[in-house]
Amino acid sequence: MPKNRRKRILRHQKPGLPPGELVHVGDRKTEDVAISLFHYSASSLEEKQSCLLNELPSPPPPGEVAWLNVIGIHDTEALATIGEKYGIHPLVLEDICNTGQRAKAEDYGDYQYVVVKMVSWNETAMEIEVEQVSLVLFGTVLISFQELPGDEFGPVRQRLRLGKGRLRKQGADYLAYSLLDAIVDGYFFLIEKIGDNVELVETELLERPDSGTAGHIHELKREMIFLRKAAWPLREAVSALERSDRFSGSGTAIYMRDLYDHVIQVIDGVETIRDILAGMLDIYLSSVSNRMNEIMKVLTIIATIFIPLTFIAGVYGMNFHYMPELGWKWAYPVLLGVMGVTAVGMLRFFRRKGWI
Amino acid sequence: MPKNRRKRILRHQKPGLPPGELVHVGDRKTEDVAISLFHYSASSLEEKQSCLLNELPSPPPPGEVAWLNVIGIHDTEALATIGEKYGIHPLVLEDICNTGQRAKAEDYGDYQYVVVKMVSWNETAMEIEVEQVSLVLFGTVLISFQELPGDEFGPVRQRLRLGKGRLRKQGADYLAYSLLDAIVDGYFFLIEKIGDNVELVETELLERPDSGTAGHIHELKREMIFLRKAAWPLREAVSALERSDRFSGSGTAIYMRDLYDHVIQVIDGVETIRDILAGMLDIYLSSVSNRMNEIMKVLTIIATIFIPLTFIAGVYGMNFHYMPELGWKWAYPVLLGVMGVTAVGMLRFFRRKGWI
Amino acid sequence: MPKNRRKRILRHQKPGLPPGELVHVGDRKTEDVAISLFHYSASSLEEKQSCLLNELPSPPPPGEVAWLNVIGIHDTEALATIGEKYGIHPLVLEDICNTGQRAKAEDYGDYQYVVVKMVSWNETAMEIEVEQVSLVLFGTVLISFQELPGDEFGPVRQRLRLGKGRLRKQGADYLAYSLLDAIVDGYFFLIEKIGDNVELVETELLERPDSGTAGHIHELKREMIFLRKAAWPLREAVSALERSDRFSGSGTAIYMRDLYDHVIQVIDGVETIRDILAGMLDIYLSSVSNRMNEIMKVLTIIATIFIPLTFIAGVYGMNFHYMPELGWKWAYPVLLGVMGVTAVGMLRFFRRKGWI
Amino acid sequence: MPKNRRKRILRHQKPGLPPGELVHVGDRKTEDVAISLFHYSASSLEEKQSCLLNELPSPPPPGEVAWLNVIGIHDTEALATIGEKYGIHPLVLEDICNTGQRAKAEDYGDYQYVVVKMVSWNETAMEIEVEQVSLVLFGTVLISFQELPGDEFGPVRQRLRLGKGRLRKQGADYLAYSLLDAIVDGYFFLIEKIGDNVELVETELLERPDSGTAGHIHELKREMIFLRKAAWPLREAVSALERSDRFSGSGTAIYMRDLYDHVIQVIDGVETIRDILAGMLDIYLSSVSNRMNEIMKVLTIIATIFIPLTFIAGVYGMNFHYMPELGWKWAYPVLLGVMGVTAVGMLRFFRRKGWI
Amino acid sequence: MPKNRRKRILRHQKPGLPPGELVHVGDRKTEDVAISLFHYSASSLEEKQSCLLNELPSPPPPGEVAWLNVIGIHDTEALATIGEKYGIHPLVLEDICNTGQRAKAEDYGDYQYVVVKMVSWNETAMEIEVEQVSLVLFGTVLISFQELPGDEFGPVRQRLRLGKGRLRKQGADYLAYSLLDAIVDGYFFLIEKIGDNVELVETELLERPDSGTAGHIHELKREMIFLRKAAWPLREAVSALERSDRFSGSGTAIYMRDLYDHVIQVIDGVETIRDILAGMLDIYLSSVSNRMNEIMKVLTIIATIFIPLTFIAGVYGMNFHYMPELGWKWAYPVLLGVMGVTAVGMLRFFRRKGWI
Repeated sequence: MPKNRRKRILRHQKPGLPPGELVHVGDRKTEDVAISLFHYSASSLEEKQSCLLNELPSPPPPGEVAWLNVIGIHDTEALATIGEKYGIHPLVLEDICNTGQRAKAEDYGDYQYVVVKMVSWNETAMEIEVEQVSLVLFGTVLISFQELPGDEFGPVRQRLRLGKGRLRKQGADYLAYSLLDAIVDGYFFLIEKIGDNVELVETELLERPDSGTAGHIHELKREMIFLRKAAWPLREAVSALERSDRFSGSGTAIYMRDLYDHVIQVIDGVETIRDILAGMLDIYLSSVSNRMNEIMKVLTIIATIFIPLTFIAGVYGMNFHYMPELGWKWAYPVLLGVMGVTAVGMLRFFRRKGWI
Repeated sequence: MPKNRRKRILRHQKPGLPPGELVHVGDRKTEDVAISLFHYSASSLEEKQSCLLNELPSPPPPGEVAWLNVIGIHDTEALATIGEKYGIHPLVLEDICNTGQRAKAEDYGDYQYVVVKMVSWNETAMEIEVEQVSLVLFGTVLISFQELPGDEFGPVRQRLRLGKGRLRKQGADYLAYSLLDAIVDGYFFLIEKIGDNVELVETELLERPDSGTAGHIHELKREMIFLRKAAWPLREAVSALERSDRFSGSGTAIYMRDLYDHVIQVIDGVETIRDILAGMLDIYLSSVSNRMNEIMKVLTIIATIFIPLTFIAGVYGMNFHYMPELGWKWAYPVLLGVMGVTAVGMLRFFRRKGWI
Repeated sequence: MPKNRRKRILRHQKPGLPPGELVHVGDRKTEDVAISLFHYSASSLEEKQSCLLNELPSPPPPGEVAWLNVIGIHDTEALATIGEKYGIHPLVLEDICNTGQRAKAEDYGDYQYVVVKMVSWNETAMEIEVEQVSLVLFGTVLISFQELPGDEFGPVRQRLRLGKGRLRKQGADYLAYSLLDAIVDGYFFLIEKIGDNVELVETELLERPDSGTAGHIHELKREMIFLRKAAWPLREAVSALERSDRFSGSGTAIYMRDLYDHVIQVIDGVETIRDILAGMLDIYLSSVSNRMNEIMKVLTIIATIFIPLTFIAGVYGMNFHYMPELGWKWAYPVLLGVMGVTAVGMLRFFRRKGWI
Repeated sequence: MPKNRRKRILRHQKPGLPPGELVHVGDRKTEDVAISLFHYSASSLEEKQSCLLNELPSPPPPGEVAWLNVIGIHDTEALATIGEKYGIHPLVLEDICNTGQRAKAEDYGDYQYVVVKMVSWNETAMEIEVEQVSLVLFGTVLISFQELPGDEFGPVRQRLRLGKGRLRKQGADYLAYSLLDAIVDGYFFLIEKIGDNVELVETELLERPDSGTAGHIHELKREMIFLRKAAWPLREAVSALERSDRFSGSGTAIYMRDLYDHVIQVIDGVETIRDILAGMLDIYLSSVSNRMNEIMKVLTIIATIFIPLTFIAGVYGMNFHYMPELGWKWAYPVLLGVMGVTAVGMLRFFRRKGWI
Repeated sequence: MPKNRRKRILRHQKPGLPPGELVHVGDRKTEDVAISLFHYSASSLEEKQSCLLNELPSPPPPGEVAWLNVIGIHDTEALATIGEKYGIHPLVLEDICNTGQRAKAEDYGDYQYVVVKMVSWNETAMEIEVEQVSLVLFGTVLISFQELPGDEFGPVRQRLRLGKGRLRKQGADYLAYSLLDAIVDGYFFLIEKIGDNVELVETELLERPDSGTAGHIHELKREMIFLRKAAWPLREAVSALERSDRFSGSGTAIYMRDLYDHVIQVIDGVETIRDILAGMLDIYLSSVSNRMNEIMKVLTIIATIFIPLTFIAGVYGMNFHYMPELGWKWAYPVLLGVMGVTAVGMLRFFRRKGWI
């Protein structure tokens, strides 16, 4: 998994290609590019599960919104076709099909380009899953690109179908906001998931810390390095979007500000967990050094009591012919007594030192 | 308790809900929503302990102030009613009933929205208690929302009832300031409380450090992580409020600046305690390694003195038939003497090394 | 002492008091409030050691300066009288009598309010002494408030009396500058004092480090935490003063810039000492781990040489009836030889390992 | 290799030379200065492998571009000749031939000066290779200076020759962008290379950590110190170029922004690897201290079990005449039993302590 | 040496002196103040080795430059005379004769005041030497103040005398630049010197690390603390100078920018060395803990093999009357065999554990 993650962070197109040349960089490929379409206004909704490349709709008139969701970004020809149809800059297409992007939002005049990381928790593999989602927001068209089927957009689709609330009545910018909001909610969910793991490891740390505990803490720290790298640029991207001409004066502005607050909360949560993990590592190291101390104490106590006594026994085990004590009647019990007193004296000394 | 705290930091609404949908997120629920009302001017005061939802007062004319204190934010219908009555934006209501907010102040034109964390020390549970307080400040109406009965506002109510001082003569903005001031005073109280604990642990550290001491330091550090996360955004919120149109030119501006100074002092106190705790942890680790050293020294001294002597005794315990020394008359006392000299020599060596 | 210091940093008024209510917060009280007055112009000087509250002078005409030095801030009534006489805002009076302030400078239009910490070294108690000094600077009146008799202002008074140099010829702002300059000089003096202590501890560290050395370093680090907390806001305060309307265009501006440079030098000195202390702690830890190593080496050498030899001796101390070696004539001396060779071989091994 | 690297970072001209005096500072010299020329427009291309100093082309008219690639910067006379021909400031020439530059971009009105580090991975020596590349961008002329033959520009040359894509149709600024893009691609390649090494070391760390592992981690950390020092100023340089008059309004602006994004990604990758390495070092230290613990435990268990037993055996090996137990019939088996019980008891005690 | 350095950082005038009063603060005094004069234009040069205080030249007309180099700043009367002659503010004179300044540049309208630290390596004492150099730059007069004879200005003087290059043709600001450039070159030289030492210590670290190595690293770290404290304010000073009215529009501006780049390179070098030293300290600590591990392993192996064997030998050394094994014929060789097998088994166990 770490390898997987590192690859995703570092992956980049092959050196030497001309800029704007479309080359897919990434591991995960769905078999075919699948395009779904939602065409809606306040009063109508048309949903098309599978939309062919030669059926791409023209931008609808104001009051209506077309949402194209493109699943699979490895088919560069399909991307080029879409790009040509709507007039997307080759550099944007290059960014879309290269999954090594940092989150960012760019204003291209006719359209806004937003790329973010969608995160989720894979229960089976017990690891974070990341997918790159790109949004291209025209006046009445929103095109979203994702790597694989399966996303966080289910609730948005549901709200579109039900036609309740604000979503159907608003324009494409509100739809873009809704998708980003769903993605940010995924971050919250993930932080809570990791938070639960932190709690488990914390219990383990307080009850029976072993070398596995340190491994778990390090694993969690690493997850947070990754999540942090994803969340900080997300903040910049949402902030740039909020300040852009498209959003700053519109009715969606207040929602973007709210989204920005959410991203700040995500970052706050990430940083809090990082601080907590740093504290836990300190506690682990403390507990290791405490145990070391305890072991040393036991060893020292045993050794310092018995080594001198063994020496005394050794002395009277010597075979010299002239050792007058050997013949004394009470020598043996007296010596045993002396040994006992010595041992007790040492134990007292240790207690006074606070070692027992 | 850590679990409790983490939950509070990370908690967020369930993913997938449309923005502005009211869902209470939090643990603590009072049974019923209780609304109390203070309606006052410089010369009059009307206090209503329990105000029904259909009796909510209309905004009074200038010169009078209505303070609605809403206890309990889990009843989203009640919140929606209040929001509709006074025209509060759904996103604000969503923030009010979601207890995972960072402190912030937002200007909605007609009203200011402020959300902060009210902290207090629970003597029984020996832990920090946190409650989210939201203030919505209209021209002559201030609505405050809190999670549970029991707050830091007692002295403010008392001053309202007594009618002394500046409070009754000023507008709703001064009331908002007074409430925030009371909340910030709670932070001071908490820091002093923690400061007392720091002092106790410090005494423990200097007199009889054990592994529990490290635990206490880590526990305090963790409290400070939490308090710091609460205090820093508070600073931004008060600063935003101070610079807002409502406050910046008014007579309350000078008081807001004072409040800002207080928040800075809180942060200063938090950071100082953090520095002190970091120093204490260093001292603890020093003392642990010192004690380890001391234990090692005792072990080494005992072992290095007696191991060679035991070897010598062992030699003369061997059963070879031809060991001429065994028959010498003075062999035994001489050997004892040699052993004594060896031991004394080693002790001198250790003293020269500075180990004793 | 640490306790004393912490208290001073965290101390704050009791929660719940209305803002602007005067309550003295602090330990140190002089018995009576003592007010001294210097009334001077370029050509004249009137000094009054003890000025009663009903004799407070009215602001003198331009060209003359009145300096009121108020010693003792616990008598809130006296403060209120002074505040009323000169028109000082209640919040300023509250800050003056609450000794938990951070250094700051505030412009109240009619007057400038500056509060700083005056530090000095108490030779008897071997600790840093801190006193809060507040300056209220009107057009021709400067009121300074301090907690206790005894301050750094002696040289300023002397220069006033002698009438030499620039001081008598300049206005109240130059006097304020002179007092602040005297206070900053106290910081330099203190840093030099602590620098001397650093040097002593450094000698101790290099010559005979023991656990006391670590304690001294930590104590010094703690002093620096404290001094740093005092010096950084001082920088902001002086900078705010320098940029204020009163000073920025005046002839005193150049002196304020110089004062600012001095504060920067103070901070520089503090940070340098902190870096040096951090380095010293590293050196101490190195030396501890080196000594540990040395102790372990001695133990290991002794034990690894004698434990096998003792075993051999033990073998020939066994009482089996059929141990043919026991009867051999040269067995004993040969065995001693073998033991000697073994010991020498081991010593060589250790030398090759670089342990001896 | 570290030495080599350090030299490159610190190297500087000899003190005392007048500014603008050309002195080559660097190790690597190609034998002769080699100048190659690409003269192209959208429709034509002239390539000259070796261009003499007296054949340097005059700036072509708009629509055509001349790219001079100068290999070898030790020949200061050649540099001076080029500088005179095109009017390059002596300080720029000084920077070009001094290989100790930080990446930077400077606007000299008539031309832009950009200096960056070109990095590549030397498979033979298993180390990072660095070369300083300077670009001087006039209206229709681009001069690039590099230290040695061999660069990352192969693909750019290939695209020029093939005449496909945007490159031949655009001006000199697009060519400059293409070269910088190729250089930044080299950084990506290098990060991936180092990322692979990180992965190898990580496997080693998890499977069989030894002292070599720490050495590898430190070596990688050091590579990252170096790469970081190269990448951060690169970011500033590209940003300065993006904001310069030449690029900010032009059609190349969007490409420069893309390049800037790439540099940010490089820095992100560097920082991520640094974080991962820091985590790996923590894991290594954990594993070292765990192993230490394990060793101590074995030692303690063996010693604490056998030292007391050996003492008991020693007691009954004493030669006192009156030791009644020696004559008892069952004494020996009973004693062996007692010893066995003691040993088992101790093992239980250790198990309860969690040491086994 | 450390003491010497600390003194220099912390040294300040005695508290209580009026501002602008000249008191020399510093250790190093040349016996007499020596003033040398260069009076030059593009075509002429007059050099005077020793210029008396009553012979100080008046500012020459434009096109000519007078450079007064004052060696020795302890003679405050001489300083006062110079200050009066050219109209230097008393605060500037105070800064000139107080050697505890941070580098800074100040614009006094008629003249620029620059103070920097000139560093050099004292080969004899093997330590960094620091001298404070102040420049006061009038229209056609430059006065430089230094503490002692001996400086980095030799090459500048030589270029003046030879009259080649730009120097004689330019004004006093170019001369000031040349002097600062020479001083910054001294920093480069010093960093290279320290870099060489770093390399030596590194070799020592990799080949035979002992406790002296740690000492050397700490000593180098300390040098870098010092150099860093000198270099960072230098950056601000050069930047302030670059932006000042005198330089920003002039022909010298481009040279000042180059100088600024050099200072950045100095800081870069300092920070790189700091990073390298931090890494070296980590490596040292690793190697210490590795060696500790190795020692512990040897001790444990020896002890755990022989302690049980010794116990067995002890058992058969007991003097019980009824120990049937003692009489068995093959008991002794069988026991030796058992002992051998035990030892081999343990060695195998250790090998499996990876301890051997």
